[in-house]
Amino acid sequence: METIIEPRVLKGFRDFLPDSEIVRRDLIARIEALFRLYGFVPIDTPALEYAEILLGKSGGETEKQIYRFVDHGNRDVALRFDLTVPFARFLAEHLSELDLPFKRYHIAKVWRGENTQRGRYREFTQCDFDIVGTDSPAADFEILFVIHHVLKTIVSKPLDIRINHRGMFNRFLERLSLTEKVVDILRLVDKRAKIGVELVLDQLIQLVGTSNAKKIIRFIELKGSFKEIVHAMIDLSGGVCAESDTLLQIHRFLTDAGIADSYILDPSIMRGLDYYTGLVYETFLTDLPIIGSICSGGRYDNLASLYSKERIAGVGASIGLDRLIAALEALGSKAPQDGYARLAIACENVESSGAYQALALKFREQGIACEVFFDSTKLTKQYIAAEKKGIRFVLIPSESAETFTIRDLQTRQNKEGLGLNDILKIVAR
Amino acid sequence: METIIEPRVLKGFRDFLPDSEIVRRDLIARIEALFRLYGFVPIDTPALEYAEILLGKSGGETEKQIYRFVDHGNRDVALRFDLTVPFARFLAEHLSELDLPFKRYHIAKVWRGENTQRGRYREFTQCDFDIVGTDSPAADFEILFVIHHVLKTIVSKPLDIRINHRGMFNRFLERLSLTEKVVDILRLVDKRAKIGVELVLDQLIQLVGTSNAKKIIRFIELKGSFKEIVHAMIDLSGGVCAESDTLLQIHRFLTDAGIADSYILDPSIMRGLDYYTGLVYETFLTDLPIIGSICSGGRYDNLASLYSKERIAGVGASIGLDRLIAALEALGSKAPQDGYARLAIACENVESSGAYQALALKFREQGIACEVFFDSTKLTKQYIAAEKKGIRFVLIPSESAETFTIRDLQTRQNKEGLGLNDILKIVAR
Repeated sequence: METIIEPRVLKGFRDFLPDSEIVRRDLIARIEALFRLYGFVPIDTPALEYAEILLGKSGGETEKQIYRFVDHGNRDVALRFDLTVPFARFLAEHLSELDLPFKRYHIAKVWRGENTQRGRYREFTQCDFDIVGTDSPAADFEILFVIHHVLKTIVSKPLDIRINHRGMFNRFLERLSLTEKVVDILRLVDKRAKIGVELVLDQLIQLVGTSNAKKIIRFIELKGSFKEIVHAMIDLSGGVCAESDTLLQIHRFLTDAGIADSYILDPSIMRGLDYYTGLVYETFLTDLPIIGSICSGGRYDNLASLYSKERIAGVGASIGLDRLIAALEALGSKAPQDGYARLAIACENVESSGAYQALALKFREQGIACEVFFDSTKLTKQYIAAEKKGIRFVLIPSESAETFTIRDLQTRQNKEGLGLNDILKIVAR
Repeated sequence: METIIEPRVLKGFRDFLPDSEIVRRDLIARIEALFRLYGFVPIDTPALEYAEILLGKSGGETEKQIYRFVDHGNRDVALRFDLTVPFARFLAEHLSELDLPFKRYHIAKVWRGENTQRGRYREFTQCDFDIVGTDSPAADFEILFVIHHVLKTIVSKPLDIRINHRGMFNRFLERLSLTEKVVDILRLVDKRAKIGVELVLDQLIQLVGTSNAKKIIRFIELKGSFKEIVHAMIDLSGGVCAESDTLLQIHRFLTDAGIADSYILDPSIMRGLDYYTGLVYETFLTDLPIIGSICSGGRYDNLASLYSKERIAGVGASIGLDRLIAALEALGSKAPQDGYARLAIACENVESSGAYQALALKFREQGIACEVFFDSTKLTKQYIAAEKKGIRFVLIPSESAETFTIRDLQTRQNKEGLGLNDILKIVAR
């Protein structure tokens, strides 16, 4: 007797059984269809790339998390850990083949060898969409508009899209002569949601002294209407500037489009990633903020600087599919109804399998999912099998092949002597 | 000045630009919709698994091709090289959660560090569909029926679905007392399409002697109608048997369903993979056999034997997406028409971006893809940008926001003073 290899997946990795995979694929298809309505087009890039390309100027954190190894050809390679870095490389490589502004989406898996203790996965799906090759604020606005449209359509619940401008905070720090410490300050401020404002203050005091620390906390905790906060930020950062103009302009666009209610100016939103240079944003469910941001993004001045001398500016965001699904589950949203088939052809005699499939095809050609059963077990057993799959109707063929019996598993009623057209009418939704 | 990292992908890996990625995603969606019409449901498994699970009893060839490395947690891991082995592991792990027979599909990427010289890729997409947990010939027939339906729908060209039964050849070799050499003989016969029958004969002679080699070649080169070949195989392999009954039964099913014309009994089809035990098949385009099999599969008696003591029999096939796309290109099939948007809203004033997006939403809500342009360049420049993307219409907003001008880029005609409903009618296909 051979030994059995224990069937198991790696920690942090998941199998998706049909019930959850149907939800995932349905969700991806809906998000994708919405992107396409805006003229975003899909691209794809390899899962595996040269490590030097993926690591670029990333710090130690990425290096620790990335799946990196030496391949057969002795190349130093790694699995992508996000879709932004491969996109930057893609832009540098294919710039001459693209018309700018270029609007792409990319829905794909990424891999990070992260600590799995906080419910994080090592393999997860991102849905990125970006507009590159334009500095127009209309592009920033479109990304914000898409976030609203996509998430409102899918979640059907109130959203808090929290916006900030990196440049405003930079100006503010400059005024406090803290520009040199900006990276450390950003890192601390970014931890606010996780560790709470008190702890952030303690750590800021150690970094920049009590007075500055308190000023920073006051800045990031500003409250009020969008406009009120912009004006408070202007006061604290030394007067009107291009960044404050952008914030006010975006607010006008949102108001003109009638969706300003979903957007909050939140000076504590920083997005730790170093490529962001302008507007940044995160999206929370108003009734379920605990789940974290389900869509984050912002503007970058020069995405592909590591791989190209061309300046490629743009703006984009990323929907975290796993968080979105967690949110939908927490909100009690129902799974799609059309998981399995609508109709099953019962098997009375395996020898008739050719005729059964030809019959089933007539339903499939009308877009009605139809299973053919494979074994001539008792009809009651076949009804149970169909019911388990959520199949509503079972067609029982007769020897004549001219008329059929149909059983409605919901009402448990049979109707006999029906022609094909009668049945098509009954099973059509 | 910082040095630039050369933007490039690994050999054998590919970027997909929008034009080709739109084709790929559209094709996957169509294949998937067809699978769903049969009650196949999707699953997904991790890209990365324990190496011992993926390698199992595979021979040296797989070991040489697999991307394998040691991860952060010192685990011996590898990227999946097909979707069948992960499915076997999945079945063993989740058997108690599944209702049998279980019909799944899995469309995903796999990775093999193969020699790339023959136009092979190291990252490619497979579309697998299987029915497990049944020995019924109706299940074998359904797989054959699905291959026909899916490929006929997508390719719209004559197909040669070449069928064989592994068991018939085994019985034939048994009669020649060559059972011990079956693996080597299969390997040689499998090379026939690549190296030609003469070379196979030469190598067979060295392996089994001239007389036996000639008998093997005669067997695999049998010609005639499906039934004629079955009867010739029966004669050469020692009489009627369960395997010949299965072949005749499948032929009856195909005839009853009216699709027998597309199927050829071809005793040279072997499918080198060791898990196949019954029917095996490959699918060629009648007019383009050179491209190779675009869908191959067969029956296996015990797929998950490495990971479970439960016997899990089944039948399935796999569509090679890259070959299918190559075939469609070679046949001159046209790309889908709805790549980018149908309509663009011209930008006359960036300050109106809020109103433009609100207007565009009215088209998107009707399922009409609509871009909003971001920069108030000259209208002629905006027309050119739209034309490049294959966008048919440009809407030119007016200050009044009550009426609009629409330009048809195909006829180069403008229509002025139109209301929203007029335009919706014009741009609807």
